[in-house]
Amino acid sequence: MSLEGSFAKLALNDSAAPTTAVKALVFKSKTNSGAKPIVVVGLQETKTPSNIIAASTESKEPRLAKNEYFEQYFNVDDAKKFNLSHLEQAESEFFVVLDSTIPSLAEETVFSTNEDTIKFTQKSLTEYINSLTKADVKIVDFSKAPEASPAPKQKKSPPSKKEISNPDAKLIGVTVKKADDFSAWYQQILTKGEMLDFYDVSGCYILRPASYAIWEQIQKWFDAKIKKLGVQNTYFPMFVSSKVLEREKDHIEGFAPEVAWVTKAGQSELEEPIAIRPTSETVMYPYFAKWIQSHRDLPLKVNQWNNVVRWEFKHPQPFIRTREFLWQEGHTAFSNAEDAQEEVLQILDFYSGVYKELLAVPTIKGKKTEKEKFAGGVFTTTCEGYIPQTGRGIQGATSHYLGQNFSKMFNFSVESPLGKEHPKLFAYQNSWGLSTRSIGVMVMIHSDDKGLVVPPRVSQYQAVIVPVGLTNKTTLEEKNLILDTTAAIDRRLKAEDIRSTADFRENYTPGWKFANWELKGVPLRIEVGPRDLKENQITIVRRNDGKKFVIALDKLEEEIPKILEEMHWDLYNAAKEKYDAHRVIVEEWKDFVPALNGKNVVLSPWCGVEECEEDIKKASAKKNDGENFEEDDKAPSMGAKSLCIPFDQPELKEGTKCVKCGEKAVNYTMFGRSY
Amino acid sequence: MSLEGSFAKLALNDSAAPTTAVKALVFKSKTNSGAKPIVVVGLQETKTPSNIIAASTESKEPRLAKNEYFEQYFNVDDAKKFNLSHLEQAESEFFVVLDSTIPSLAEETVFSTNEDTIKFTQKSLTEYINSLTKADVKIVDFSKAPEASPAPKQKKSPPSKKEISNPDAKLIGVTVKKADDFSAWYQQILTKGEMLDFYDVSGCYILRPASYAIWEQIQKWFDAKIKKLGVQNTYFPMFVSSKVLEREKDHIEGFAPEVAWVTKAGQSELEEPIAIRPTSETVMYPYFAKWIQSHRDLPLKVNQWNNVVRWEFKHPQPFIRTREFLWQEGHTAFSNAEDAQEEVLQILDFYSGVYKELLAVPTIKGKKTEKEKFAGGVFTTTCEGYIPQTGRGIQGATSHYLGQNFSKMFNFSVESPLGKEHPKLFAYQNSWGLSTRSIGVMVMIHSDDKGLVVPPRVSQYQAVIVPVGLTNKTTLEEKNLILDTTAAIDRRLKAEDIRSTADFRENYTPGWKFANWELKGVPLRIEVGPRDLKENQITIVRRNDGKKFVIALDKLEEEIPKILEEMHWDLYNAAKEKYDAHRVIVEEWKDFVPALNGKNVVLSPWCGVEECEEDIKKASAKKNDGENFEEDDKAPSMGAKSLCIPFDQPELKEGTKCVKCGEKAVNYTMFGRSY
Repeated sequence: MSLEGSFAKLALNDSAAPTTAVKALVFKSKTNSGAKPIVVVGLQETKTPSNIIAASTESKEPRLAKNEYFEQYFNVDDAKKFNLSHLEQAESEFFVVLDSTIPSLAEETVFSTNEDTIKFTQKSLTEYINSLTKADVKIVDFSKAPEASPAPKQKKSPPSKKEISNPDAKLIGVTVKKADDFSAWYQQILTKGEMLDFYDVSGCYILRPASYAIWEQIQKWFDAKIKKLGVQNTYFPMFVSSKVLEREKDHIEGFAPEVAWVTKAGQSELEEPIAIRPTSETVMYPYFAKWIQSHRDLPLKVNQWNNVVRWEFKHPQPFIRTREFLWQEGHTAFSNAEDAQEEVLQILDFYSGVYKELLAVPTIKGKKTEKEKFAGGVFTTTCEGYIPQTGRGIQGATSHYLGQNFSKMFNFSVESPLGKEHPKLFAYQNSWGLSTRSIGVMVMIHSDDKGLVVPPRVSQYQAVIVPVGLTNKTTLEEKNLILDTTAAIDRRLKAEDIRSTADFRENYTPGWKFANWELKGVPLRIEVGPRDLKENQITIVRRNDGKKFVIALDKLEEEIPKILEEMHWDLYNAAKEKYDAHRVIVEEWKDFVPALNGKNVVLSPWCGVEECEEDIKKASAKKNDGENFEEDDKAPSMGAKSLCIPFDQPELKEGTKCVKCGEKAVNYTMFGRSY
Repeated sequence: MSLEGSFAKLALNDSAAPTTAVKALVFKSKTNSGAKPIVVVGLQETKTPSNIIAASTESKEPRLAKNEYFEQYFNVDDAKKFNLSHLEQAESEFFVVLDSTIPSLAEETVFSTNEDTIKFTQKSLTEYINSLTKADVKIVDFSKAPEASPAPKQKKSPPSKKEISNPDAKLIGVTVKKADDFSAWYQQILTKGEMLDFYDVSGCYILRPASYAIWEQIQKWFDAKIKKLGVQNTYFPMFVSSKVLEREKDHIEGFAPEVAWVTKAGQSELEEPIAIRPTSETVMYPYFAKWIQSHRDLPLKVNQWNNVVRWEFKHPQPFIRTREFLWQEGHTAFSNAEDAQEEVLQILDFYSGVYKELLAVPTIKGKKTEKEKFAGGVFTTTCEGYIPQTGRGIQGATSHYLGQNFSKMFNFSVESPLGKEHPKLFAYQNSWGLSTRSIGVMVMIHSDDKGLVVPPRVSQYQAVIVPVGLTNKTTLEEKNLILDTTAAIDRRLKAEDIRSTADFRENYTPGWKFANWELKGVPLRIEVGPRDLKENQITIVRRNDGKKFVIALDKLEEEIPKILEEMHWDLYNAAKEKYDAHRVIVEEWKDFVPALNGKNVVLSPWCGVEECEEDIKKASAKKNDGENFEEDDKAPSMGAKSLCIPFDQPELKEGTKCVKCGEKAVNYTMFGRSY
């Protein structure tokens, strides 16, 4: 059995662990030759009756496929040679019917194929299946017989109160718990919640409308704030010549390993490779120098909303670490340091505002250490978030004071306002950026085992209205009244600028719809049923906690905004409580690693010396002892990094020693394992 | 004398034309060693007194530079070896003081250096100087002595009514007329009007806030329109694997020569080169195929606002033909052809709306011929503009019906709504795009010899308020009243959502400010002076035609929106008149080329056969006979291409013959030389 492609990388041939046998079988429809092939992946012992396969894929009479079929769809000339690695080479879409026993096993479980030559873990199998862009995956419990197909029109008797059901209903939903496998859970809620999809260039992801809409809300809010400060939007090219990119030495050292290079256009090799911007300091500043001719032209304040590329070779993660991402980058220049530094902090406040006011995420503002600051700048301010599930810190957004480093490098100077006889004045610069990473932080913090939870101020839809209680007994008149009321509520909410949608899909039960919208994280569900109409009321359910509200139909416009507001602050306060509870002061080194292991970030008195910071990282590293945290190249073996020196400092008592080296502490610094 | 770099490319060593000698001299400040070097470029015969050089560059005592200085700034060890080509290698910013005689000469004028070995034209010299990103160019008339430096504080007597002057005032402004050298004029108004700047990667340009603000207005208008149609914004990666890019054969043939390839990241060669999207059909459609599982999931409508790269090797032109550009690309899929085709036309209406309603530009809607349609689509609809100065047509934006070509290639299908036993239904798709090219079309059409003219609905600022009539005799009280009123008007206009700005810059005369804002194309200038205040009125001047309005101060809020509206339609109607006058019906071939030469686009009866279209192009090509049109690789020797088959057709009489081949005509097609 030969293996190729990405599956080969997942294989685990040197494991001595006991293995569980799995099988991969290919089915085709007997009567519909154009239907998608069906690949059943299950435990060797699981029986996979074809009626269950048929129901889960809506296929007609699936039968085990013949050799020609393997050739046509998977480029394998013999059914016996077929294995999981061939799924990557599929010529077209196909179903994967996954035995639900597999996701229910521990992720360390070692599987083998029936020929017993290849071994791989449950985790790698799940990841592999998720990575197949042509696969339409259905997770199926083969232990249960499928429900009878609904076909409501034919099924006139016996009339029942049972609502119209759909055989797919049980197939959606998140199959991993947040507490069990955070990383797999995160991927599932993003993809099943239709916020994001994996893309066939590694490290790049598709932002689907549900996440892009959040980005649009962030843009709108932040753009208005900075425009009030006099910042103007602009667009500089994405390409930068190597000569210009390399002009500032510290800066390029920070970015060089991650720069993507264009070397070819059409069939022609370029004379010089051209870089794709990892950030635009060196792209912009030569032109700042050209445009600003007098100190009267300062301050200069521009911003752009754009894509940048940092070709990281580390483990990518949707939103959090991606090779291309969207952000805004502001670049400003002042005639004096005071104005520049005032702006740096003003922008940092906006960033923490994006997190608090829009994403309902608490952050801690502070300054980065010398080691962690922006390459080429003087100092970096940051707002730092916290992911309770992993106990890791995460950088939210950074605002840098560049001082005169870049302006001197790019000869960006003007005559002194004091007169020509005084030395030239080099501009004082800032740069600051907030990226789509913020969406990932928001998702990790609020979402749950049912799927996404999106805070109301940014969610694409704030409320979904679902007609309920329609049964086979419902009269046409009653049905129309419910549907009309649903549509009317939708219109009324839209008129109030509430982003609502009504779910009129037929062939789906309300229960299926509830689960579907919960998966997508829509903040409020509004139910409109016969009983509600009788009472002139509606029922509202909050996504985050299932809390129900019954409100009078004519109070909609007043009540719903209140419920949305309350929900925003409830989400924020819940997240803040966790952050506050897990940000602990540690004065002695003996308590440091145990605190980290307890999923805390740590505030410790620190000497401010870079070597000591390195020591802390090394000494707090631990081997993967099977605990639930992700192995990560960026933080090898997960030593604690300094997250920031918080602006809000505990009192540093006279004579306090550094938590690690015992020298004089200069401040309390926040450390943590981090993203 | 050896030549390197881009200057070498401009040299013209085989010309036998009589030459005019030019000189390039380098000056440095005697007393300020840190000041920028000054390169004076002038006719050999022009005298260049150092007091004029000093005034034009605000330098202290400029003196001819010594050898060390050449080494330090231009990497030349001997002043005698210095020539224009060394300006490319300048280590830092420098002034170019350009003898105003040079831009005033015809662009064919052949220059030689003082050693008489290198020859180049006036045009290539001007282009070369414009391309120097580190050069701060001042055009100076050496025949006039500089005005005495103003220093208004010292110059207390004699008190005069002359307004405070600035020595720079005469140095700004457009030095080429639109009618004389359209291409140089276009570059000058864009760069001097601060809309755009040249960038050091060829074919890429910087969109400065004045142009990006126009793009934001277009985004806002168009985005709202498509959202009402149910289109959702999304973001797909900019990278695409070669395998996916090459999936649709006709499509890739159309784009392959222009694709930029990333082959390297940091120090590592990538295993496979990765393309940068030239457009996103092949990026998106594999995922459409994955997401759409049922005909009930159709229509699918997404759009993104993004950058794309088409690495053209032809002569780039700001906005019009650039290697990276910004656009929106909409991609939609329907279950039937009718709905798809209805949308194609709806979007085309929006595009012609962007031109008409926002940019005040008339376009003609129609269908592209088979030869000119989108690679891989079924048909392309377009709105076509017209540039009166060059008599050339220009494609405004295109909306494509792709039919099932891509959906079959990407296996993007659903079950038939008629039931599973019917054949699978492949989606009917559209794609449509509008780019920043639209800004270039707008600039070319409305702007004039004084600079940019920007239509009011899109301009960054709609009105600039300039305090006037302040003289040395003005009392502080009078002055404060004028300045306060200026600020109050600014506030009142902003409160009405009119994008206004007030120009309080000191040390500039109102005349200088007027010229400066005219250069930038701000629609209205509002003058606030002592006389106006006495009468409780203000004076308003329209940028496009200098038309003056005197309105009562308390009628501002009513009158200004009216004046802006009128101005929009006046601009549109003026452009439409020209287009209408230069779109002529030509029935016979003998009149075809003369009509083109008369700067017309031509509506002719045509047979619809591609070979005939090729013949028309060849037969209508002309050599550059010195007339004022730009040589262009995209339309070699400028044969006429088909622009579109207009929807609005002249009556095609029975028996009408094709204008070129004499076969039966099937419609009237619009032909023209084009961009």
